[in-house]
Amino acid sequence: MDARDVVITEVGPRDGLQNTQSFMPTAAKKAWISAEAAAGVPAIEVCSFVPAKLIPQFVDAEEVLAYANSLAGLKPVVLVPNVKGCERALAAGARRIMVPISVSEAHSMSNVRKTTTQAIEDFARMADLVKVQAQRAQLVGACSTAFGCSLQGAVAEADVLRVALALRAAGADAISLADTVGYANPEQVKRLFRAVRKAIGEDFPIEAHFHNTRGLGLANALAAYEVGVRRFDSTLGGLGGCPFAPGASGNVVTEDLVFMFESMGVNTGIDLGKLIEVRRTAFAALPEAELYGHIAKAGLPKGFQPSAQAA
Amino acid sequence: MDARDVVITEVGPRDGLQNTQSFMPTAAKKAWISAEAAAGVPAIEVCSFVPAKLIPQFVDAEEVLAYANSLAGLKPVVLVPNVKGCERALAAGARRIMVPISVSEAHSMSNVRKTTTQAIEDFARMADLVKVQAQRAQLVGACSTAFGCSLQGAVAEADVLRVALALRAAGADAISLADTVGYANPEQVKRLFRAVRKAIGEDFPIEAHFHNTRGLGLANALAAYEVGVRRFDSTLGGLGGCPFAPGASGNVVTEDLVFMFESMGVNTGIDLGKLIEVRRTAFAALPEAELYGHIAKAGLPKGFQPSAQAA
Repeated sequence: MDARDVVITEVGPRDGLQNTQSFMPTAAKKAWISAEAAAGVPAIEVCSFVPAKLIPQFVDAEEVLAYANSLAGLKPVVLVPNVKGCERALAAGARRIMVPISVSEAHSMSNVRKTTTQAIEDFARMADLVKVQAQRAQLVGACSTAFGCSLQGAVAEADVLRVALALRAAGADAISLADTVGYANPEQVKRLFRAVRKAIGEDFPIEAHFHNTRGLGLANALAAYEVGVRRFDSTLGGLGGCPFAPGASGNVVTEDLVFMFESMGVNTGIDLGKLIEVRRTAFAALPEAELYGHIAKAGLPKGFQPSAQAA
Repeated sequence: MDARDVVITEVGPRDGLQNTQSFMPTAAKKAWISAEAAAGVPAIEVCSFVPAKLIPQFVDAEEVLAYANSLAGLKPVVLVPNVKGCERALAAGARRIMVPISVSEAHSMSNVRKTTTQAIEDFARMADLVKVQAQRAQLVGACSTAFGCSLQGAVAEADVLRVALALRAAGADAISLADTVGYANPEQVKRLFRAVRKAIGEDFPIEAHFHNTRGLGLANALAAYEVGVRRFDSTLGGLGGCPFAPGASGNVVTEDLVFMFESMGVNTGIDLGKLIEVRRTAFAALPEAELYGHIAKAGLPKGFQPSAQAA
C-alpha cells in the first residue's frame, strides 16, 4: 500500500458509534468518512452489519458502505457478527470484513450467545460464502479478548493460539488480536504477537486492535510495532468501547497514534493537521460524544516534522 | 535498592505543586508524602528550594524536607534552581538534589535568566559545596528540554551530549534527561538515551523524566526501559507541568506508570491498590487540582497479578 510504513484503520464509525446512544445522521457519517479519507486515512471501518433492532445506529449500513466504496483511495472495512450479517455485507459490496471471535468463552456467550467453537464454525461458513463471490472479499478473523476478559479474567495464550490457527484453517485472510477491554500490557503484547505469528506463519497478515481503557494503548501499539505489527485500529478522539464488556471504554486515539508514529519517522500516509481538523468538525452532529486524546489539545511540537518531511 | 526492578520517584509535591495556584497546607503535604511512602514509593521529590517570593508554594521547604527525612525507607529528593538554593537545601539536610539545566538556551534564559554555560558553572559550584559536606548528598544533573523546547523547537542531540558530559565532569552523581514540554517520541528516547549512555558511560546512573503533554508519556517510559533506564519520575494523578514552557502540562501519571510496569512483571515495589487510594485522599486539601490518568478510573483488570505475585 504505497509508501506507508504502517496502515492505520479508523474504526470510529463502527466501534465508536456502536456505543453512542443517539443516532448519527447518515450525512454526518458520510462527511466524517470522507474527511478522514481526504486526510489520508487509508482504511475506515464504516459500519456493522448487525440487526438494526439490536443496534439502531447501523440501520444505514448499506448506504454508508456504498458511499465509502465510492471514495477513491479508501479501503472500507465492515464488521459482521454472524453469517446473516456476512450475507448482507457481501450483498452490499463489502471488500474487507472483520469477524470478531471471542477467545474468552464467557465473553463469547455474553456477546453473541455462542461458544467460541460455534463462532469459529460460523466463521468457516462465512469463508465459504466469500469464496464463491466474483470479487472475493477479504475476511479477517478478529480474536476478541485476546489479552484478557473483564468477565473471565486472564485468557490463556494457548486459547488464543488455538483460535487463531482455527480461523486461519477456516479461511481467514488475516488475523487481528484485539484487546477488547484494555487489559493488555506491552510485555504481553510482544509475547502474544510473537507466539501467534510463529504459529500462523510470520508472513501471514496480522493486525492489532487496542483500547486505551487503562492508559496503555499507545505503549501497546509501540510494543506491537517493535515485534513487526504494521496494521492498527484506532478511533478519532478515542470514541468508543465495547457495550458487552463492563468497564471497557475508549479506543486508542487515532490522532495520538498517528502523532506517535509520525514523530518516530514511521510513515502513516496521514496528514496530522488535517486529521485534527476532522476531529473538530466530525462530531458536531453528535454533541454527546466524549472525546479523548492529547495532541489535539496540546498542539504539534514547534518545528514538528512529519515522517515524509524528515525522510 | 531491595528487589525493585525500577525506581519510581514521585515528583508531585515538587513538579505538581509548582504550578498550583493555591497553597497546599504543610500538613497536607506531609500526609501525602507519608501515604505514598507507606504505599511503597521509594523516592519522593518533596520540595523546591526556590525563593518563596517566586513560588510561595515552597515556603515550607525546610519543614517538609525534615519531615520526609524522618520517614523510614523513603529517599527524599529536592530540587534547587541555583547555588543559593543548594546552600539552603544542604543546610536543611537534603540527601539527593536535582539541579535542572536547560539544554535549550532559549528555555534557560526564560527559566533562570542564565545561559546553559552559566548554569553549568553554577552546577560546578554546587558540586564543590556538596563535596565538603560530612554526609555527602547526591547531586543529579537534570538536562531539561533534552527532547525539544517549546521556545526553540528542536534541540540538537550534540547539545544534550555536551551538557551531560559537562555535568558529569563538574561532579554530577547521576544524569537525568527530561522531556520538559512533552515533545519526546519513543524512537528519539531510545536514540538519545543510548547516545548519552555511550558518552557518559554505560554504568553511570541515568534517569528519565517524561511529561504526558502529547500522550506519549508511557510509550516513552517503555522505550527508555527497553534501552536500560531504570529510574523514572512521575506524579500522582499526572499533576503538574512547567510554568515557563508554554503549552506544557501533565507529568506521566504515577499510578498508570506503576500499572504498566507491574503488569509487565517489572517490580516497582509499590502497592498499586494503596497508591490509587492515596490519589483519592491526597488532594482533598487542593480541590483545584486537575487529575489525569486511567487506572484509577478503570480499575485493575480482573485477576490482576502484580509483579511480586506473578514472579
